[in-house]
Amino acid sequence: MNKQQLFEQIQLKKSFLCVGLDPVLDKLPKHLLKYDDPILEFNKQLIDATHDLCVAYKPNTAFYETRGVKGWDTLVKTWKHIPKDVFTIADAKRGDIGNTSAMYAEAFFKEESSDMSFDSVTVAPYMGKDSVSPFLAYKDKWVILLALTSNEGSNDFQSKQSDDQKLYEQVITTSQQWADSNQMMYVVGATKPEEFQNVRRLAPDNFLLVPGIGAQGGSLSAVCEHGLNNQCGLLINAGRSVIYASNGKDFAERAREEALALQQEMEQILKAANLI
Amino acid sequence: MNKQQLFEQIQLKKSFLCVGLDPVLDKLPKHLLKYDDPILEFNKQLIDATHDLCVAYKPNTAFYETRGVKGWDTLVKTWKHIPKDVFTIADAKRGDIGNTSAMYAEAFFKEESSDMSFDSVTVAPYMGKDSVSPFLAYKDKWVILLALTSNEGSNDFQSKQSDDQKLYEQVITTSQQWADSNQMMYVVGATKPEEFQNVRRLAPDNFLLVPGIGAQGGSLSAVCEHGLNNQCGLLINAGRSVIYASNGKDFAERAREEALALQQEMEQILKAANLI
Repeated sequence: MNKQQLFEQIQLKKSFLCVGLDPVLDKLPKHLLKYDDPILEFNKQLIDATHDLCVAYKPNTAFYETRGVKGWDTLVKTWKHIPKDVFTIADAKRGDIGNTSAMYAEAFFKEESSDMSFDSVTVAPYMGKDSVSPFLAYKDKWVILLALTSNEGSNDFQSKQSDDQKLYEQVITTSQQWADSNQMMYVVGATKPEEFQNVRRLAPDNFLLVPGIGAQGGSLSAVCEHGLNNQCGLLINAGRSVIYASNGKDFAERAREEALALQQEMEQILKAANLI
Repeated sequence: MNKQQLFEQIQLKKSFLCVGLDPVLDKLPKHLLKYDDPILEFNKQLIDATHDLCVAYKPNTAFYETRGVKGWDTLVKTWKHIPKDVFTIADAKRGDIGNTSAMYAEAFFKEESSDMSFDSVTVAPYMGKDSVSPFLAYKDKWVILLALTSNEGSNDFQSKQSDDQKLYEQVITTSQQWADSNQMMYVVGATKPEEFQNVRRLAPDNFLLVPGIGAQGGSLSAVCEHGLNNQCGLLINAGRSVIYASNGKDFAERAREEALALQQEMEQILKAANLI
């Protein structure tokens, strides 16, 4: 999916919500345990209940890998179940030397190889340009580069100052030379809304994937105040607050209610910004 | 495997060689293509031919993920085939917010969950302490933290100077507070031998995993000059130069010859340093 198509989906659905599909077996509604693959059933019902309210799904690969081969099978089948008009993010935080990153790109983008073709992959910047470039060789596929993450550990290195820039600012500035806003997004955590003005100064046109709303404590309106651009430019992820809205038989219905509340808040924000 | 046991293996085998198991289907000897899982057969024969000459195997997960579910199955079966006296490294370069890194730790360390239990995982430092800590909760399991990698892109961020330290030096210094040398190793590329003196100043007791010998151009003797410590402290990875020594029916035999040449060079180095 390209940038224009993504913006069209945002306008159509009046939403810039991304739902994080990070299921843990212990937290699933008990009635799903009778299925061969309870996590797949959980994901399918969540997708069926929310796909008209969100523009992206983001399974984090850790939650699948933890179950070994069968978890990876669940990831493939979850990807297949997502409607093609919804942007897909493999939240994998990969990155390696060039020839190895090329293998990761194939894993997440090339369906003939791996049975999956996500629209985008999250990538860690530590290893620099040649660890990122192989992902950019795929047309209309995206790198979502970690810039300023939502966790406490983001203070350990990302905010270190050098040459008048913090590390995360250097990551944004440097990577702007690797790809334009048609293939590059950045992860910027909602837990640091005061940094969005700064991020927008460095990356005015790029989409930002924003985790940290909900369970991690970030605020939607605070992020939007400086984060919106003229094509919206934000994908706001909600994970646990949506998928675990209930652990009863009504889990999908309750997830829909949570997604709907977020979509409605986003619709007001898009209207106020004259984007719809 | 703990640090003392690893050092004992090094003394016993007179080797600190790690073999990188990064197989690409297109590069396999043609006669293996008749097997159900040619990559597994390739790995098994390589392991059978070299396990007395090396102290570690390091499959890079990218080369397995690229083949989707069946690739992940190959990874599990490869791990199972490695003798228990050989240290195993999942070269996965993972790292995420705390609760997600806990899932990755389970994926690579907890056999009940994922059918695999590697001795160690490579971890990317960008997201800081809480992205690394969950891996340290497993007794006798190791984090191998990316410090100074062997690729060209390592110059993009890892060498940025701030507070009188380069980023990779900050990574080492800061992470020394997260775990001691019984659970923490560092990746330091052989392509930058001039940095080893500096690394040893910051991390005198830690093992270093050193990629970049062979196909990437690094020199074993240059690395050892400043890299050795009183428990050897080095795991030198050789990948393509060993596993692709031949693409004929003699591939395992030729891989053994390459591994043997490295082991013999290492034996001389260990003797000269009075470590055996």
